[in-house]
Amino acid sequence: MSEGLTLPQGFRSASGTAGLKVSKSTDCALIVADAPLRWALTTTTNTLKAACVTRNRARLESRAPVRAVVINSGNANCATGAAGERLNERFAAAAAAALGFAPDEVLTASTGIIGEPLPVGKLERILPVLAGRTGPDAAALAQAILTTDLVPKTAAVTLQSGARLVGVAKGSGMIHPNMATMFGFVLTDADLPQELLRTLWSEVVTKSFNQVTVDGDTSPNDMAFLLANPRVAADPDEFAWGLLQVAQELAKQIARDGEGATKLLEVRVTGAVSDAEARRAARAVVLSPLVKSAAHGNDPNWGRILSSVGATGVGLDLGGLSIRVQGTPVFGGAPVPFDGGVLSAAMDAPELVVHIDLAAGLGTGTAWGCDLSADYVAINADYHT
Amino acid sequence: MSEGLTLPQGFRSASGTAGLKVSKSTDCALIVADAPLRWALTTTTNTLKAACVTRNRARLESRAPVRAVVINSGNANCATGAAGERLNERFAAAAAAALGFAPDEVLTASTGIIGEPLPVGKLERILPVLAGRTGPDAAALAQAILTTDLVPKTAAVTLQSGARLVGVAKGSGMIHPNMATMFGFVLTDADLPQELLRTLWSEVVTKSFNQVTVDGDTSPNDMAFLLANPRVAADPDEFAWGLLQVAQELAKQIARDGEGATKLLEVRVTGAVSDAEARRAARAVVLSPLVKSAAHGNDPNWGRILSSVGATGVGLDLGGLSIRVQGTPVFGGAPVPFDGGVLSAAMDAPELVVHIDLAAGLGTGTAWGCDLSADYVAINADYHT
Repeated sequence: MSEGLTLPQGFRSASGTAGLKVSKSTDCALIVADAPLRWALTTTTNTLKAACVTRNRARLESRAPVRAVVINSGNANCATGAAGERLNERFAAAAAAALGFAPDEVLTASTGIIGEPLPVGKLERILPVLAGRTGPDAAALAQAILTTDLVPKTAAVTLQSGARLVGVAKGSGMIHPNMATMFGFVLTDADLPQELLRTLWSEVVTKSFNQVTVDGDTSPNDMAFLLANPRVAADPDEFAWGLLQVAQELAKQIARDGEGATKLLEVRVTGAVSDAEARRAARAVVLSPLVKSAAHGNDPNWGRILSSVGATGVGLDLGGLSIRVQGTPVFGGAPVPFDGGVLSAAMDAPELVVHIDLAAGLGTGTAWGCDLSADYVAINADYHT
Repeated sequence: MSEGLTLPQGFRSASGTAGLKVSKSTDCALIVADAPLRWALTTTTNTLKAACVTRNRARLESRAPVRAVVINSGNANCATGAAGERLNERFAAAAAAALGFAPDEVLTASTGIIGEPLPVGKLERILPVLAGRTGPDAAALAQAILTTDLVPKTAAVTLQSGARLVGVAKGSGMIHPNMATMFGFVLTDADLPQELLRTLWSEVVTKSFNQVTVDGDTSPNDMAFLLANPRVAADPDEFAWGLLQVAQELAKQIARDGEGATKLLEVRVTGAVSDAEARRAARAVVLSPLVKSAAHGNDPNWGRILSSVGATGVGLDLGGLSIRVQGTPVFGGAPVPFDGGVLSAAMDAPELVVHIDLAAGLGTGTAWGCDLSADYVAINADYHT
């Protein structure tokens, strides 16, 4: 869907190979704005935080202007101590020098192996090259930020005013070797106040990236950025809608590309006592290895689904509760008879949808994951530090 | 280790085949005492609870005497509504009639498929037979309560006074098809007050069965029983020690028999700010699919270990923190160089021990799990409801 997709007004990007990875594939990218950005950032909740996460959070609080983000893969610069912080600062300074900005105007985003010093010299050599060849192609940016993902992830929405939102993401839900990271970037030319952007971003991330789970592991480097170069007027409500569309589309693409995944698993919970409880229940179902294994085997095992909800502590009133798999009722106050062969065939699809109605309130929430295949184990067991 | 192992004084058991399972293997067992028991029970925290769990909890609060436990596999009698409660009551009444007790003197424990009515007629036919052939063999009881476990699980301790504790368990950490259940039974002839037994049991289960995790799923039928037929004096402190030994040994056997497991994974956390935090951190590490996959591949990936601790929200002071894998330091304030080939060879063992010292306090905790193999996926994807 990214063919010919261009970045919003006022943004350019570039990417190249610094040589941080054995594969010699693209490992460094720049996102550059032609004016100071309004921006928002959510970061990992892991108490282990990479140097780039810590520094960006400090930038977020400082209110100083931001003009660019520099990204590398192949090295997470995490658990590397004070030396790692200095290497991260050099990374920002190198990008700033190449672009003619101050170091504080550049955010950093690193992903890759944990515990090894960032080879900043290699990055310092390529950044002036990248700064000289930036362009408006969104697909190239989506490709450049990938590590072990199989496919680039992009999503875009154009509002009625002409303002655009373009999102790119990497990661397969924290499941790749070495905790490879989820990065999300939504770029927009909508002209809205920074405080509104930050409020909206927090709400949207809660309903999108934070509802993706592939194996429950959370990288110390996860970050989701909203970058706005204010050019075009936008209706705040329509913008909020568009932002949620873009972020949820990226979240689904991340889940679909989960390691070893053969299908997207979408779990919708309705009738919860609150949205938060609905989201928690939905996450629990997509996280359950038993449900994920059943999804892989096209098994409409509603007992596993029901039990994974109950394990979260969410109250269950079985008399009113109902479960549908691919639209087919399998439980409705009591087990509902169904044709197992027909339903199993319907589950053998690229997208598997489970709907659970708790019949306890008005709360709703959706989570996205993937099935669990033997390939997941093979990939993660065979990868060596 | 169960060859010739006999039950403590005053206990007898029997088992047989009622025909609840396609395999026609043993699916019904009785534990009988020759006097009213002092007892304790911990049950699943899943809000979905089977009829046997709900009924036993009511018995626990009633203070009425208990003389026997009747157990079946092949059917969990869960999510079966009011009809399921009546079937469970008939199950207890049938065992009571066969043994000459009142129905309230019999506890029930069912495990197996969720959502189907308990075929109590089959159980009613075999229970008089079982009641007529009870004996003191602990190994037979351990075998009888198994469902899809590969090996029976027993543990025993004899105190200085001659009082004995004999434990049997089933389950592979809530990982078997259809959420198959963890049951633990510790039988003892120690003469100690019931209130003390209940306090000790709660503490011991926290440090044993609740520290086993294979895939994070929690069955709606999990129960752990402590049954005491008071015959022999016992020192409370020595009894508490023995009870912990037996329960932890059973917990380790459950983890080692995890579905598809090729090795036991033991994670010891020291230096936490509290025991609870240490236990939580240890559980997170044995639960991480990335750590479990690395364990399977003999990969000393300390980044995954560190990150899985951080993901729990436990505070990390990397300067003091250290990690050992099979006794070899891999992180100590900073990455510690090690010979990857030698350490990988040391990890290729039936038991893999990871030690994490957080250097933040005096809290300690241990958790047990297993590696994640492709067999886990194959077994759970191919099993059909």
